[in-house]
Amino acid sequence: MNRQQKIQMAPLDAMWRVMETHETPMHVGVLAQFKIPPRAAEGYLEELAEYLRSFNRPVYPWNQRWSAGPDFVARFEKIRDFDIEEHFRHHALPKPGGERQLGRLVSRLHSIALGPNSALWEIHLIEGLEAHRFAVYLKVHRALARGITAVPLLMSFLGDNPRKRKIKPFWTIAHTPDQASGEEEYVSWHSQGANDLLRSTTRIGRDLFRSVQNPREAASFLLPGKTPRSTLNRKINHQRRIATQQFGIQRLARLAEAADSCIEDILMYLCGTALRRFFMEYNALPTESLIAGVPVELHDEDELGPSNAIAGLRLSLNTHLGDPEERLDAIKGSMQSLREEVENLPHHAVAPYTFTRSLPIYGSQLPVVGNLVPPLFNLSISGIVAGPKHAVFLRGARLEALYSLNVLMQHSALSIDVIRYGDTLNVALTGARDTLPRLQRIAVYMGRALDDLEKLYALVDGGLRE
Amino acid sequence: MNRQQKIQMAPLDAMWRVMETHETPMHVGVLAQFKIPPRAAEGYLEELAEYLRSFNRPVYPWNQRWSAGPDFVARFEKIRDFDIEEHFRHHALPKPGGERQLGRLVSRLHSIALGPNSALWEIHLIEGLEAHRFAVYLKVHRALARGITAVPLLMSFLGDNPRKRKIKPFWTIAHTPDQASGEEEYVSWHSQGANDLLRSTTRIGRDLFRSVQNPREAASFLLPGKTPRSTLNRKINHQRRIATQQFGIQRLARLAEAADSCIEDILMYLCGTALRRFFMEYNALPTESLIAGVPVELHDEDELGPSNAIAGLRLSLNTHLGDPEERLDAIKGSMQSLREEVENLPHHAVAPYTFTRSLPIYGSQLPVVGNLVPPLFNLSISGIVAGPKHAVFLRGARLEALYSLNVLMQHSALSIDVIRYGDTLNVALTGARDTLPRLQRIAVYMGRALDDLEKLYALVDGGLRE
Repeated sequence: MNRQQKIQMAPLDAMWRVMETHETPMHVGVLAQFKIPPRAAEGYLEELAEYLRSFNRPVYPWNQRWSAGPDFVARFEKIRDFDIEEHFRHHALPKPGGERQLGRLVSRLHSIALGPNSALWEIHLIEGLEAHRFAVYLKVHRALARGITAVPLLMSFLGDNPRKRKIKPFWTIAHTPDQASGEEEYVSWHSQGANDLLRSTTRIGRDLFRSVQNPREAASFLLPGKTPRSTLNRKINHQRRIATQQFGIQRLARLAEAADSCIEDILMYLCGTALRRFFMEYNALPTESLIAGVPVELHDEDELGPSNAIAGLRLSLNTHLGDPEERLDAIKGSMQSLREEVENLPHHAVAPYTFTRSLPIYGSQLPVVGNLVPPLFNLSISGIVAGPKHAVFLRGARLEALYSLNVLMQHSALSIDVIRYGDTLNVALTGARDTLPRLQRIAVYMGRALDDLEKLYALVDGGLRE
Repeated sequence: MNRQQKIQMAPLDAMWRVMETHETPMHVGVLAQFKIPPRAAEGYLEELAEYLRSFNRPVYPWNQRWSAGPDFVARFEKIRDFDIEEHFRHHALPKPGGERQLGRLVSRLHSIALGPNSALWEIHLIEGLEAHRFAVYLKVHRALARGITAVPLLMSFLGDNPRKRKIKPFWTIAHTPDQASGEEEYVSWHSQGANDLLRSTTRIGRDLFRSVQNPREAASFLLPGKTPRSTLNRKINHQRRIATQQFGIQRLARLAEAADSCIEDILMYLCGTALRRFFMEYNALPTESLIAGVPVELHDEDELGPSNAIAGLRLSLNTHLGDPEERLDAIKGSMQSLREEVENLPHHAVAPYTFTRSLPIYGSQLPVVGNLVPPLFNLSISGIVAGPKHAVFLRGARLEALYSLNVLMQHSALSIDVIRYGDTLNVALTGARDTLPRLQRIAVYMGRALDDLEKLYALVDGGLRE
């Protein structure tokens, strides 16, 4: 590919490039934990590493990097001398190889932006995890990972059959909007779009700014209001912290039944309850409820693949309510409103809708604007993303846990992302390290909130309900 | 410290900031290997990690980062929220924990520039090294590590006494030009110097460029000539590769005596011989001899500490000579000339001398210039830097090997750096990965060259000499 053939990006993909800074790298991650097969040979992991390393010729788009140009339009270009050592890496954890050591390494890996001159993905094999396990951490730039998680990329490795030895890593599988030739169509699609989007964002930023200065003019659409300012909405630095929590789905299902609700309601209750407790410890709980931004992936009928478009809906976590039952009831109500809003989302003409719906978020990332406008929400919580329904395997190793690690934007220091895999819900918290130095506590408090709710509904011994 | 108190840097320090790019990060490194004490407790390394991590309040200048300003003058500013987790890290090697796994990790760590918003140093504790050993890798920006290596910083941890438990990490020790208050004087010293230097470099770059276009005008001082163009003088990318080799000093001393030379001569012979063999394998040996740039540290009497000034002298490695004895004789001659030149180096008024002497090197880093002017030398070889004479220890662990990893500049893809520690010479090769994919071979060939030379001088059985 010569210079004339540089590939212009779809505008919503290019936006992730425009918004990327040292403080807010725009990659998503997946953390997967596997059990080493019971009868694995001594050099099982070394052999797996060598096998993955041998796929050193990535196909489009995994062989692309950012192209530097005189203008601000984001483009890709092919890398001439691809070096697999930059993209596949083999680590080991210091002893004892517990969650703490794993958390440190993955937090570190998730904090560093992908190299400006390298292909926009990395995969890390991590040995030395206690109880005869290992981990894989995958990192993909948001501009490549269309859709809201990178989970499907990791899944391309895995199969239902523990005896399957030949796996095809994602970077050997072409991934284009139409899954076929793609490259040319990708170029022609919205060739001026990125510039238009950049202009719109600047305009929206200016409008947001004006709305704050002159509240009478404020469009309620741009600034829906009612989101309290919280410590979660400060400027963040580039360091991330990761915390995880795994729940058996049966526990949540039993509670949902007892509370006449559904699993999603219980999950949101656990998030809200843990955040309430966490911020009360720091005397930092706002008097109004914390608002979660819930990303909803939109499909554009012009494209065959998933689009990179997300609408950010708002969900009250009712953290201002002290009584557990009252809080759970209120969450059920908030979730019902959210479901109605999702129902009403347009499924045609996504791009114009998403522009208007997402631009306040993009606009709030502009340096001056973000410090002045009220936050649109306090944190992000993804809905439950469906992972594999049954056990899957990587060269005989059973997948035990699967977490989705997210992008953070300025003024929004926490993202909670949930994947359902088999009978488990896998909750990952991606936090800004400077804002949330004790992030793991939120995960721990989610577990406690579940225990307490079970007691409340007398589902375990020691229930408090009379 | 408020904005008015930003600290302007000495011009020669600031130069390292000006020259830093993604492809040529300007940090130096130290790699040290230790033997775990024979009766160490189970959690010895974990405890060491916790101990080091506990020093989370660095003193000046270890609490400084680059300050972004509207002009191009490099300044430091204090970091408000220092995070030790960004600067101390604990790794483990994948099994089997050999030189290959260590090399991969350290090469990777040495490839990544220090974060633009972080303090300009990192220290890495590496466990899982075979034969009951561990390693420490230290990384310091060239602008902070005055003098040509970071070895003294590491040494501040170590002591003669294996029973010494309390160590004071370097980032708790103030390091200023006058070792006392320093901060203010540092500010006043050459307040306009960095700008002047930047202007001079641009001017020299232009002169170099003109000299090439019009050879009659060429000043022999700026372009000494006779350096062949080699594969070592291409543009390099940011990836580094590290290789190491340790020699017992007795072997070199015996050879020096037999060849009526000195240890330095033998070392340079080993470098030249290994490079000759390496480049012959690739059919890439220039017909004229490869020229090594030998950095010589200059002391400025205005300052009490070591200055950051280096003169780059030129040494012919006589790689064009096929006969080993002839090559060794020629090296002895080259080394004699080098010694005379070092004798004649000025020890007063260093700054003006260094400016004129080093500016061709700086100038050749400018984007257009470097591609056009002939190289000033093909690679860098440091003289032998003196390390500790006797065994030193880190919390009971004996230091076994000590390597100095260097900066690479554009158009100079290899640096060989040597430290003497006790009875060993520790040779480290820092190479550009894209230019020297088989760097380890050069280290191996140095060992072979030593074996062959011993045979030539009949110092071992099987000597070939009649």
